Amino acid sequence: MTVLAIIAKKRDGLALDAEEIRFLVTAYVEGTIPDYQMSAWLMAVYLRGMDARETAAFTQVMLDSGERIDLTDISGRKIDKHSTGGVGDKVSLILAPLMAAAGVKVPMISGRSLGHTGGTLDKLESIPGFKTELTPAAFHDQVRDLGVAMIGQNERLVPADKRIYALRDSTATVASIPLITASILSKKLAEGIDGLVMDIKCGRGAFMTEISRAEALAQSIIHTAALHSLPTVAVITDMNQPLGYAAGNWLEVREVLQALQGRGPEDLMQVTYALGVQMLLLAGFEGSTREAVNLLQNTISSGRAMTRFQQLVRAQGGDVQSLQEPGSCAAARIQQHLRAGRSGFVTGIDALKIGEAVVRLGGGRKALGDQIDPAVGVLLGKKTGDQVDKGEILAVIHANQTSAAREALEMVRSAFTIEAAPAPKGKSILRIIKG
Amino acid sequence: MTVLAIIAKKRDGLALDAEEIRFLVTAYVEGTIPDYQMSAWLMAVYLRGMDARETAAFTQVMLDSGERIDLTDISGRKIDKHSTGGVGDKVSLILAPLMAAAGVKVPMISGRSLGHTGGTLDKLESIPGFKTELTPAAFHDQVRDLGVAMIGQNERLVPADKRIYALRDSTATVASIPLITASILSKKLAEGIDGLVMDIKCGRGAFMTEISRAEALAQSIIHTAALHSLPTVAVITDMNQPLGYAAGNWLEVREVLQALQGRGPEDLMQVTYALGVQMLLLAGFEGSTREAVNLLQNTISSGRAMTRFQQLVRAQGGDVQSLQEPGSCAAARIQQHLRAGRSGFVTGIDALKIGEAVVRLGGGRKALGDQIDPAVGVLLGKKTGDQVDKGEILAVIHANQTSAAREALEMVRSAFTIEAAPAPKGKSILRIIKG
Repeated sequence: MTVLAIIAKKRDGLALDAEEIRFLVTAYVEGTIPDYQMSAWLMAVYLRGMDARETAAFTQVMLDSGERIDLTDISGRKIDKHSTGGVGDKVSLILAPLMAAAGVKVPMISGRSLGHTGGTLDKLESIPGFKTELTPAAFHDQVRDLGVAMIGQNERLVPADKRIYALRDSTATVASIPLITASILSKKLAEGIDGLVMDIKCGRGAFMTEISRAEALAQSIIHTAALHSLPTVAVITDMNQPLGYAAGNWLEVREVLQALQGRGPEDLMQVTYALGVQMLLLAGFEGSTREAVNLLQNTISSGRAMTRFQQLVRAQGGDVQSLQEPGSCAAARIQQHLRAGRSGFVTGIDALKIGEAVVRLGGGRKALGDQIDPAVGVLLGKKTGDQVDKGEILAVIHANQTSAAREALEMVRSAFTIEAAPAPKGKSILRIIKG
Repeated sequence: MTVLAIIAKKRDGLALDAEEIRFLVTAYVEGTIPDYQMSAWLMAVYLRGMDARETAAFTQVMLDSGERIDLTDISGRKIDKHSTGGVGDKVSLILAPLMAAAGVKVPMISGRSLGHTGGTLDKLESIPGFKTELTPAAFHDQVRDLGVAMIGQNERLVPADKRIYALRDSTATVASIPLITASILSKKLAEGIDGLVMDIKCGRGAFMTEISRAEALAQSIIHTAALHSLPTVAVITDMNQPLGYAAGNWLEVREVLQALQGRGPEDLMQVTYALGVQMLLLAGFEGSTREAVNLLQNTISSGRAMTRFQQLVRAQGGDVQSLQEPGSCAAARIQQHLRAGRSGFVTGIDALKIGEAVVRLGGGRKALGDQIDPAVGVLLGKKTGDQVDKGEILAVIHANQTSAAREALEMVRSAFTIEAAPAPKGKSILRIIKG
């Protein structure tokens, strides 16, 4: 078995066996295969694909490269939700405490923002004092005692993914369905969960811009998860416009607080409930979908979800007081209003452009390691489908630099499409796919 | 313009413009782009291809990475012949002095053996004292005065190709038609020639095993050469069985001496004349093909080709005496006879297996830098189409190690196919393709 033969086999479109994949990845992580051979293989995988059996084998060897969290001594099913990333996607911050308050254990390991997509860790860290690094033991105990913990990727979980992802990021091999599948599932399997709900974003602001690709990713994840005995459901949700009104870390936390008070935007709550229902079902809930939604709505209206969020923030060192008076905290210096140049109907708000405007303002990362400004962002005044009069506020740019504010304003302006006739509003939930 | 965007563009099957290719290759040679990005791009090129315009641009930037030899002050057209490599392919050693004796200037830069294919430099260096390194000035003067010089790749000519070839060799991206085209043509354009005849080997012992791939490479080289104003003709020749009877460096030199004495094997002379005729035509010869062949045959029968070969050997430091008594020089210690296990007709001699047997004996290289034993090799007793009686000698293994001799004998045995009924002999010249 030689590296060259393995690269050539994949290059020629043949399926690799598990031993070949194990040999390649293990040698790469040990440093006996150079980056340039791995990247040639990754490009061959990007262009030739991998079947479910190969993807499962790749996932397994990635998983075996590090430690696994053991939550088996905690009663009840441990269910996580993972999103492929979008703009204004603050669902995890609502869903994790909501599900915990509804009785589901949620051990959640999230990522940081990169490019135009936001990251749950950056949103959490915009809460003063919030720590996203817990030891495995502290993570375990918090899931057991509070029902929820939200942390970042641990260095010791799936180190192979960390190295391979960095190489993919600099060789244009990120957007490969089998590689994405293995990257996500190896990390989720390392969490020690009993079920997974995938939120696969689809549209202008997502990695998957076409529904057929989003479905293919959903099928790949579900099949590969099944080969690892992890019950998984995929929900494909719209990411043509930002989710909710807020894009930018602290602005999104404020929208999360509104949602936990029962005042969340319609599309954000639809996605939250759709994902939450699937988590409930994976956790063993035996009622109907309608009953599941009612349970989640009651958990919010009773205040139990908000209480659990506050407990979560306190448990991880965050300043709960900042949640009581969110306006007093992390306010941006400049607020520029974007007003409609004409009357009509909003027929589109390009999520990609909004995401790029947030990055321009300093609220996201161009490269790993960039600093984030938690205060900046874009707060929409209108959503797709809304009627608008000339001069009405379309969006407010929250900025800390004049030049960035000016540029972001133009980016947000170009994101809006306003037409004389209304366009159909579009659905938030596009598909629910089960194994 | 970013490296990542260039990789992604080729990954997605789009054509790169000349500026993008120049940016990429220049930055790679300067060391500002790492190997792992270049290898991802090379794999994308392997799988997505490049069109004639891209290949010409790639060739140009490779060419621009180093110096060019200037032979413009030498009268007459300078014509080179280049082979894609095969087993027993000693044509250059016959053709270069033959053409010079026929009045064509031949500035020939050749390569070394790698894998199962032989290399002209190794064959020349099996002549005691022969030096394949000349300064550009000495090369120039010898072409002017003797009409022929045969040297190896100079470090200062096309350094980009040297680096990129090494990377291709370790990332399974060698057998790409546009990459082969640019690698060959950049080096040939750097020689300062006025015309090129390509010998594109096709069959079991060649890089191109299918005629359609050989034709595609021929077309790619001819089109790309035309964009660089280099008149080029491609001759596709058979490489299913070894060319001639000898495979192994000094054994092949001895067969060259026979050929220059008018006693060359039929297939070897057919290929030599077919290529020589095209070189004559590119040099301005105005007669018919028949007249061109007559001219070449007369140049051999008159002894002028042999005289020029001896002058060439002397000019480059070789021991001419060794050519007079070739049996006294570089003889292998062991000679094992392979005899036919049955009577019948030889219907195939797998050139790949013969080439691998030569490597096993120490007459070729597994990796660049391996030492070559000039004395070892395989001397065939029969060729495809020949009748054979049980017990007759099929081949003689020339070896210096007992274990290698035994293994090579079995490899050569497995290369022979003997059947009861004769098979059609097959042609040596498969196609002649002009621009």
